[in-house]
Amino acid sequence: MFNPDGRLFQVEYAKEAVRRGGAAIGMLTKSGVVFVAHKNVDEPLSVLASMQKVFRIDAHIGAAYSGIVADGLHVIDETRGAAQSHRMIYDEVKSVEAIAKGLSAYMLQATFYGGVRPYGVSFLIGGIDTTKRLFEVGPDAALLGYKANAIGFGKKIATDMLIKEYKEGMTTDESLLLGIKILNKINEGKLESDHVDIGYIEEGKEFNILSEQEIAKYF
Amino acid sequence: MFNPDGRLFQVEYAKEAVRRGGAAIGMLTKSGVVFVAHKNVDEPLSVLASMQKVFRIDAHIGAAYSGIVADGLHVIDETRGAAQSHRMIYDEVKSVEAIAKGLSAYMLQATFYGGVRPYGVSFLIGGIDTTKRLFEVGPDAALLGYKANAIGFGKKIATDMLIKEYKEGMTTDESLLLGIKILNKINEGKLESDHVDIGYIEEGKEFNILSEQEIAKYF
Amino acid sequence: MFNPDGRLFQVEYAKEAVRRGGAAIGMLTKSGVVFVAHKNVDEPLSVLASMQKVFRIDAHIGAAYSGIVADGLHVIDETRGAAQSHRMIYDEVKSVEAIAKGLSAYMLQATFYGGVRPYGVSFLIGGIDTTKRLFEVGPDAALLGYKANAIGFGKKIATDMLIKEYKEGMTTDESLLLGIKILNKINEGKLESDHVDIGYIEEGKEFNILSEQEIAKYF
Amino acid sequence: MFNPDGRLFQVEYAKEAVRRGGAAIGMLTKSGVVFVAHKNVDEPLSVLASMQKVFRIDAHIGAAYSGIVADGLHVIDETRGAAQSHRMIYDEVKSVEAIAKGLSAYMLQATFYGGVRPYGVSFLIGGIDTTKRLFEVGPDAALLGYKANAIGFGKKIATDMLIKEYKEGMTTDESLLLGIKILNKINEGKLESDHVDIGYIEEGKEFNILSEQEIAKYF
Amino acid sequence: MFNPDGRLFQVEYAKEAVRRGGAAIGMLTKSGVVFVAHKNVDEPLSVLASMQKVFRIDAHIGAAYSGIVADGLHVIDETRGAAQSHRMIYDEVKSVEAIAKGLSAYMLQATFYGGVRPYGVSFLIGGIDTTKRLFEVGPDAALLGYKANAIGFGKKIATDMLIKEYKEGMTTDESLLLGIKILNKINEGKLESDHVDIGYIEEGKEFNILSEQEIAKYF
Amino acid sequence: MFNPDGRLFQVEYAKEAVRRGGAAIGMLTKSGVVFVAHKNVDEPLSVLASMQKVFRIDAHIGAAYSGIVADGLHVIDETRGAAQSHRMIYDEVKSVEAIAKGLSAYMLQATFYGGVRPYGVSFLIGGIDTTKRLFEVGPDAALLGYKANAIGFGKKIATDMLIKEYKEGMTTDESLLLGIKILNKINEGKLESDHVDIGYIEEGKEFNILSEQEIAKYF
Amino acid sequence: MFNPDGRLFQVEYAKEAVRRGGAAIGMLTKSGVVFVAHKNVDEPLSVLASMQKVFRIDAHIGAAYSGIVADGLHVIDETRGAAQSHRMIYDEVKSVEAIAKGLSAYMLQATFYGGVRPYGVSFLIGGIDTTKRLFEVGPDAALLGYKANAIGFGKKIATDMLIKEYKEGMTTDESLLLGIKILNKINEGKLESDHVDIGYIEEGKEFNILSEQEIAKYF
Repeated sequence: MFNPDGRLFQVEYAKEAVRRGGAAIGMLTKSGVVFVAHKNVDEPLSVLASMQKVFRIDAHIGAAYSGIVADGLHVIDETRGAAQSHRMIYDEVKSVEAIAKGLSAYMLQATFYGGVRPYGVSFLIGGIDTTKRLFEVGPDAALLGYKANAIGFGKKIATDMLIKEYKEGMTTDESLLLGIKILNKINEGKLESDHVDIGYIEEGKEFNILSEQEIAKYF
Repeated sequence: MFNPDGRLFQVEYAKEAVRRGGAAIGMLTKSGVVFVAHKNVDEPLSVLASMQKVFRIDAHIGAAYSGIVADGLHVIDETRGAAQSHRMIYDEVKSVEAIAKGLSAYMLQATFYGGVRPYGVSFLIGGIDTTKRLFEVGPDAALLGYKANAIGFGKKIATDMLIKEYKEGMTTDESLLLGIKILNKINEGKLESDHVDIGYIEEGKEFNILSEQEIAKYF
Repeated sequence: MFNPDGRLFQVEYAKEAVRRGGAAIGMLTKSGVVFVAHKNVDEPLSVLASMQKVFRIDAHIGAAYSGIVADGLHVIDETRGAAQSHRMIYDEVKSVEAIAKGLSAYMLQATFYGGVRPYGVSFLIGGIDTTKRLFEVGPDAALLGYKANAIGFGKKIATDMLIKEYKEGMTTDESLLLGIKILNKINEGKLESDHVDIGYIEEGKEFNILSEQEIAKYF
Repeated sequence: MFNPDGRLFQVEYAKEAVRRGGAAIGMLTKSGVVFVAHKNVDEPLSVLASMQKVFRIDAHIGAAYSGIVADGLHVIDETRGAAQSHRMIYDEVKSVEAIAKGLSAYMLQATFYGGVRPYGVSFLIGGIDTTKRLFEVGPDAALLGYKANAIGFGKKIATDMLIKEYKEGMTTDESLLLGIKILNKINEGKLESDHVDIGYIEEGKEFNILSEQEIAKYF
Repeated sequence: MFNPDGRLFQVEYAKEAVRRGGAAIGMLTKSGVVFVAHKNVDEPLSVLASMQKVFRIDAHIGAAYSGIVADGLHVIDETRGAAQSHRMIYDEVKSVEAIAKGLSAYMLQATFYGGVRPYGVSFLIGGIDTTKRLFEVGPDAALLGYKANAIGFGKKIATDMLIKEYKEGMTTDESLLLGIKILNKINEGKLESDHVDIGYIEEGKEFNILSEQEIAKYF
Repeated sequence: MFNPDGRLFQVEYAKEAVRRGGAAIGMLTKSGVVFVAHKNVDEPLSVLASMQKVFRIDAHIGAAYSGIVADGLHVIDETRGAAQSHRMIYDEVKSVEAIAKGLSAYMLQATFYGGVRPYGVSFLIGGIDTTKRLFEVGPDAALLGYKANAIGFGKKIATDMLIKEYKEGMTTDESLLLGIKILNKINEGKLESDHVDIGYIEEGKEFNILSEQEIAKYF
Repeated sequence: MFNPDGRLFQVEYAKEAVRRGGAAIGMLTKSGVVFVAHKNVDEPLSVLASMQKVFRIDAHIGAAYSGIVADGLHVIDETRGAAQSHRMIYDEVKSVEAIAKGLSAYMLQATFYGGVRPYGVSFLIGGIDTTKRLFEVGPDAALLGYKANAIGFGKKIATDMLIKEYKEGMTTDESLLLGIKILNKINEGKLESDHVDIGYIEEGKEFNILSEQEIAKYF
């Protein structure tokens, strides 16, 4: 329901839930898209590998989220299922934008009814079809394309650094290093490699999620 | 639900959401209809091309919106789908007014039930059937025809300028330039060409959306 | 839901919405029924022809409304559809009273459920079957016949003038002129011909809506 | 929902709505039942003939109502439809009591659910099957038989007069005159014949509703 | 819904409604069951015969109620219908206890949902199957057997008198006279025979409801 | 719905309803299970035999309840029905634990939805399958096994006595006498045999409910 | 529904319900997973064996819960059913993570609708597929992997001890002893062996729940 100045209360509150989620960063690179995300867990005995923040949606598309964990996983699952159904029924892959719009439409439904809450999660979703694309979708279901963007805890810091240091045409490696640098800044220099999730796609290759070992090499 | 003076609270609040959306302007020209809309995004790294404010609904009809992004996209999609269904089932195109009424009827439903919110978005929708037509539909689902009209942020400024400077029988180019001039005024002289979305239709041609390059030529 | 003195709050509030709608006047004439309605829009660039206040429901019956625009159009559409269905199924036209009762029954439903709002609109509906008939139906769905009646903004002024100046057996032209005179009074002498919508039916002819040119002749 | 002393708030409030409705009086006569009802409308231009307060339900049964106009018409319609269905399915007429019970059961449903309001209307319903019968059904759906009874505005005055002046075995004419006398008293001597609705049934004849002319003869 | 001390608010309120209903008394007699009930109506013109407080449910079983009139009639109707269905489907009569449990189950449903109110009525239901039985069912749907019991207005007075004066093995006539005596006490000596409803069953006979004339003989 | 300290208000309130119900005691004996329950009715004219507190669920299993009478009977009926369905479909009896879990699952549903209240009743349910078993299920639907247990009014007194005096391996008779002793204590020495309901099962025999005469022998 | 700082009230309250549940501990061992859980019941006559806190979900997977008993049993049942369905339909076992995600998805649904409460229970769920895995799922449905973890009453104490004393590669026996030591600490040294529930899985063997006798050996 709207409040008197035309905002949707529940959606505004859901955005607060996103602001407390571990940061995620996405960038268009010279040849594709990279995602670097923070696993903001502070429990010594947790298996960080079990906490996934970057996901492969389809061969040519990936996503990262910030916010309520279960909401993130649920919407990712729905989006992945929709992409696969399309592939099976039409024997073709959906464009990155079409998949991002599907995710947006799914989240929009949850903002309409008084008896249902919105999803407390934002997504960066991107990949390559005819070109490389990167989108953000938030609890309000709005969809906007970016060259580089950040969501979640420390978004302000991340965005400022991206504006200063991100350049179009960076290589995948340069982008990943910038992403890690930003997460480290947000975490006041205490970022550890096992708290980072990384995925990327380059032209001609499928979306790839790095192992803990591969990530450690960037530190 | 009504409040004691006979207004619908939620619809009034939804209109506030429209007032904060990027302005959109529509005009009947000598030979058709033009739409000029502002992409009110202030994020250096966003890909403005991904933010569409003007849409082709069918070959002979287009639309622009102001307000909640996801609501706008959703209603546009519904309207586009309805137009295509009609075309496929009856092998004829619906009139501009019939399509605008369908959009209005779709939005009206959302104002009736206590458990659902209205759409926080206004539309300018127009095109050519037996003649050129331009309509506004707001969160209250009311439908009214215009020679020229503006919605969204700065509507007052835009309307005043239209009243003074718009003339029936302007060419497409003259109209587009006036639209851009108005958006520039609303944005205090700081309008950039990549923050503008433009679409138009002329008699005998299909609805056409300009590329960033084509828009830049008008600056 | 009822309030303690036995009134229905939402219906009372909906009546306020009607009181703010452009006035509409209906009169039984010597040979039929006339409707004269005000398009209360004050936007220089609007196409007043696109705003319809008087409608043909079936060949022998018409209607005018005051109140929430989208509600008015929706109920008119429903009523028109019901009349056509009846004609197609039974190969006969429904009586004016039967159609007015159908409209009333449709509006009554919206006053029963806690989660739905009443329609914020009143109708004058009339025509000729075995004789000429004119009814009012309001947000409370009550149905009452009239020789002459007014709804919407300025109803008090209009009713007082009708009581004084309306006579049974006036011709169509005399009635239309009285209707225009009343609207002009309500609008403090500033009524313009393009802000007026007129429809009428005479015995042996179908319900007829005047063009802007035809209306202008009465000024 | 119940309030703490075991009453149903909404039903109590609905009774207030009845108390403001035009009075209706029913009486058992020597050979049948009469209904005399007041059309409490104070609009000089209304067609009082269009406002029906007394109805034929089936050949052998009639009814009058006080309260919310649209509710009254709706419940009358339902009751009439149920009587006709029964006649068609079973090829027999339902008894007066069975039809009155059906009306009561229909109104009872509306008192049960939190999201629905009760009907704001009371009925007098009566006729002849093996004998002459007269019942009242109110917003609480309670059913009670009467020799003579009044509902609506001025019920207290009407009941006092009935107690004093009504006699079993009055003729139809005597009863009608008494009914008119009572309505006139309620209306402080200002009752006009066109504001009265009258229906009656006599043994061996069908339920009959008087024309304005026939009613005028009693004045 | 429960309140903090484990009571159901709505059911407690419904019991208040019962406390205001006309008293009803049931007793096991030497050879069956009797019901004596008060028609608590104080309207000189009402046809008391139309107000039934004692009902035949099936050939071997009867019932009386106190509380909201329409609720009582409705539940009686349901119970009667269930008994007849059973008889038709299984070609056997249900036991008195089974029918009373059915009535209880029907009333229990109404105590569960937030949007529905409980029935504001209590029943005495009794008859003969392998032996004579008498049960009470209240708004809480609880079922309890009795040798003699009273419900409704004056229950305390009635119960005290039953405890003192009721004896197992009284004849039908002795029981009826005791019942009338109790109702007279509750009504401070002003009980009239036409305000009493009486029904009884004796072994080998069907349930029988007395006419006004038969009741008058006991006075 | 939860309250801030993680409790379910409605369930807590329902437990209060149980605390006011007549006490019921269950014990594992040397060769089976016994139930002794109090019919907490203080109405001289009630037929206590009609008030059942101990029930046979299936040949090998019984149950007793405390709390809202109608709730108890309803859940017992459901449980009995489920046991019989299983027996008919699978041609085998369900284990005592499986039946108790079914009862628990049925009651759990009523704790989830805002518009439905929990059942205000606790059960002791027990019997013999491969061994003898006794369970309690409360308004929160929690299921726990016991050697001996008490529910309802005086639970504290009963439990204290059971802890002191109950011994595993007591005979059926010894257990029944202890149960009666406890009920007598709760009732301050005023327990009468017709206010007691008793059921038990012994190995190799079916669940058996004692008649009033059989119970009287234990006094 | 969200509160203004982006938290879900009902979920926060449900977590309180978990904090009051008996503690449960899970650990990855050298060759599998162990679960040690406390049956926090203080009733001398209860049969502790009937209170299960550790469950076999499928041959290769087990789980323990803390919180509302009936909620725990219900969700375990659902999860067990889903695992079995999968096994029967696809003739393969689901991975531990897939089953844990199914449990998480089931619990997520209950956090979305205004009229339904979340489950007041947390789970530790673990087993062996290609490797050994252990997950926690709480009322918010979030899923996270752990090497060792504790839920329920005394979680802080348990977690601190696990951080200090748990070592990867402990044997099953060492882990069980550590788990018991922790429960004893939480229970201030008063832990009894029959209040403990233990289950574990080792490579090449099925999930195994210890009997009371087997557990007693660890004390």
